[in-house]
Amino acid sequence: MNKPREFDQTVLAELQALLGDRVTTSSGIREHHGKDESYFPYAAPDAVVFPHSTEEVRDIVNICRRHRVPMIPYGVGTSLEGHVLAVNGGVTLDLSQMNQVIAVHEADLDAVVQAGVTRKQLNEYIKHTGLFFPVDPGADATVGGMAATRASGTNAVRYGTMRENVISLKVVLADGRIIQTSRRPKKSAAGYDLTRLFVGSEGTLGIITEVTVRLYPVQEAMSAAVCAFDSIDGCTNTVIQTIQAGIPIARCDIVCDKTIAAINGYKKTDYRVAPTVFFEFHGSAASVVEQAEAVQAIAKENGGMDFQWATRPEDRNRLWDARHDAYFACLQLRPGSRAVSTDVCVPISRLAECVRETMADAKTYFAPVPLLGHIGDGNFHLMLFVDPQKPEETDIAKQFNRRLVQRALAMEGTCTGEHGVGLGKQESLRAELGDDVIAVMRDIKRVFDPDNLLNPGKVVPMS
Amino acid sequence: MNKPREFDQTVLAELQALLGDRVTTSSGIREHHGKDESYFPYAAPDAVVFPHSTEEVRDIVNICRRHRVPMIPYGVGTSLEGHVLAVNGGVTLDLSQMNQVIAVHEADLDAVVQAGVTRKQLNEYIKHTGLFFPVDPGADATVGGMAATRASGTNAVRYGTMRENVISLKVVLADGRIIQTSRRPKKSAAGYDLTRLFVGSEGTLGIITEVTVRLYPVQEAMSAAVCAFDSIDGCTNTVIQTIQAGIPIARCDIVCDKTIAAINGYKKTDYRVAPTVFFEFHGSAASVVEQAEAVQAIAKENGGMDFQWATRPEDRNRLWDARHDAYFACLQLRPGSRAVSTDVCVPISRLAECVRETMADAKTYFAPVPLLGHIGDGNFHLMLFVDPQKPEETDIAKQFNRRLVQRALAMEGTCTGEHGVGLGKQESLRAELGDDVIAVMRDIKRVFDPDNLLNPGKVVPMS
Repeated sequence: MNKPREFDQTVLAELQALLGDRVTTSSGIREHHGKDESYFPYAAPDAVVFPHSTEEVRDIVNICRRHRVPMIPYGVGTSLEGHVLAVNGGVTLDLSQMNQVIAVHEADLDAVVQAGVTRKQLNEYIKHTGLFFPVDPGADATVGGMAATRASGTNAVRYGTMRENVISLKVVLADGRIIQTSRRPKKSAAGYDLTRLFVGSEGTLGIITEVTVRLYPVQEAMSAAVCAFDSIDGCTNTVIQTIQAGIPIARCDIVCDKTIAAINGYKKTDYRVAPTVFFEFHGSAASVVEQAEAVQAIAKENGGMDFQWATRPEDRNRLWDARHDAYFACLQLRPGSRAVSTDVCVPISRLAECVRETMADAKTYFAPVPLLGHIGDGNFHLMLFVDPQKPEETDIAKQFNRRLVQRALAMEGTCTGEHGVGLGKQESLRAELGDDVIAVMRDIKRVFDPDNLLNPGKVVPMS
Repeated sequence: MNKPREFDQTVLAELQALLGDRVTTSSGIREHHGKDESYFPYAAPDAVVFPHSTEEVRDIVNICRRHRVPMIPYGVGTSLEGHVLAVNGGVTLDLSQMNQVIAVHEADLDAVVQAGVTRKQLNEYIKHTGLFFPVDPGADATVGGMAATRASGTNAVRYGTMRENVISLKVVLADGRIIQTSRRPKKSAAGYDLTRLFVGSEGTLGIITEVTVRLYPVQEAMSAAVCAFDSIDGCTNTVIQTIQAGIPIARCDIVCDKTIAAINGYKKTDYRVAPTVFFEFHGSAASVVEQAEAVQAIAKENGGMDFQWATRPEDRNRLWDARHDAYFACLQLRPGSRAVSTDVCVPISRLAECVRETMADAKTYFAPVPLLGHIGDGNFHLMLFVDPQKPEETDIAKQFNRRLVQRALAMEGTCTGEHGVGLGKQESLRAELGDDVIAVMRDIKRVFDPDNLLNPGKVVPMS
């Protein structure tokens, strides 16, 4: 790896000449940009810049490249594997002021947005069109950040992840070239799929400045439900049979008994304390009723108890807010702790087995281990509480996570369903895909970023 | 470009030592492998080999690389842009004997197949499971070939293309390494998306030997319909409004009046001679009725006439067979001709305009110009008849196609919705994506194939 030169006054002066007061070296702002939602120690950049356009990003890239200064693209800092940490120092490009919706094409069901537009902002903006953008990782992340990390979340079982929902990207390359990866039609066979290569590249191959995303019609009817089960197997079997029956379920998330208890405490709800699945159905009024009845019948055969329904929008939102707040609710189980968030994903046929073995392992952990996950995709998260003041706790959590990843890999799973690699999953990635694949990824990284200046130290080690 | 050495007896002897009589230099077989369904002049390889395993493919690759002999992967030869033509000679790897279904995971809705398994073979194999593989480009192509060309077809509007339906690939790289691009879960954020990089790479980055694909439950009910319209605009507006209404239509294909007349002549059907849309609906019995009624109402408002329904499987198949045979039916319009098949795809909002201008242009063409296409995706094909004995006709067809591509690009479209780049679309690709993107694609090609031996001359020019 090329060691970056000391960040110096020349770089700062050039950036200031370009951006005026949209460059800062204030320690508070640098520190804020040197952390995400992960357990990693903070690593602040030397400066933070706030570009307003693709051309400004290009000019920043040109300055940084000439001075061999690392560049870290930043959205809102909600990643979970240390993606935005400036481990080699350098300049963080905070894209949150690039927050214009450039175009909405209602007939084509797509929108073009600057990278700093958040998913909630986009959905608010297009509300009147009867369309929505479905990818929902929980946090109100930026669309650019979501593209960069290949985000997914609760809707992926029906609407796919960012992989399926990004149509095209505008990207500034390390050498300052600006490319548009694809045209706007939903399908194309025009050469290598550069769009998908940048989706999930975590800022290491180029800086995404604009994203064209797919939109979907808001369906005539939606209904949501919560159902407790007598076992995790009951939950997974219900979802497997639902999907096999071709029922186009829009969302199905699982929480364990500890998580639902935490939700009850935090949200003043009174859900039964047992493994629980949150469902959502989208479709015509008749089809939603039909889907819901079919799933209820399947659930009953698999030990499902007392379906609680919510059809009015406010009730549905309250129900899913409870699920979305599960992370924060669980944090209250051990005040002052941070959480190491695990992220394995296995073929759904192995999910019950993987969860069962993992929960047995969790009995050895020094704190409660709540579970939540996107059961329809085979993806689940555990929250491994750690006291940031006690490094030995983080070590224990990491060892637990390593065992979990090994277990998932042995079941043909992946170490990361949706959080990405960042700093935290590089060894797991090697275990998952093998040395040859890592070597290929490094070759690709070298083509796009020969000086290793784009978010260095993430995804694949270059030294 | 490195000029390949003369194909010599040493190479042949090494291949024969490896494969015995599964190596041939017979001129009949070489010629058969030197053509596809396109209008390009034949270009036969020096030899054709028939490997049975990934390891044999690796050994072939190692022999060819050592002797700097080009390698062309071949499925069943149904590509339309000259993809499999051995323009620099070399060895064609016919993968049709790698036709084993390796695994079907019913609960996970996926299957692992060798590259030479055809889509019909796979669907026959899994018939008893109640699952199916949806991607249907018309021809009974191999799954490996479909992955390599990012194929799509009539079902893409609902089920996506090969981009969305390939989970993982086993690939032999140019240096003989064998990699598996991904694990088996449906989603993953594990590093750069190598799977999508190989999907659509047309054999130029590696040789795909195994494909893991998504499967879907056969729905409880299916129904199909044909509806004539008084204008092309009526067709496109119907489909736009159907999609915006969130109706999960499974298929919707358009044919023009000339095409439907050809179908009537070829299939002895009596469809009204007018712009026509073929529909198919999948879902529960109730939902299929509901979808069909909703679409019928939309069609009526847009000049749709006399919906003809088919719900029994044999009637549905007959109806879609008519659509599938449209290509051959149209060839009868000018016996002895071959067809230059165009493939632009535009945002659906521009489809009517693009078709209208193109049909006006078609009035200048020396032969009838039938149209057929995947209207829900904005993708349509014209058949430009040419007499292979008269090169001036092919020139006129190519000029027509060039104007069509320019028109589509001006409407934010792509030069190829599903046929790929091959030999025929390289200049269009440059016009579509620009010199910088072509340069990036060449850089990627160089990483994977530094000696330019993998299907040389396709996708991006290297010299």
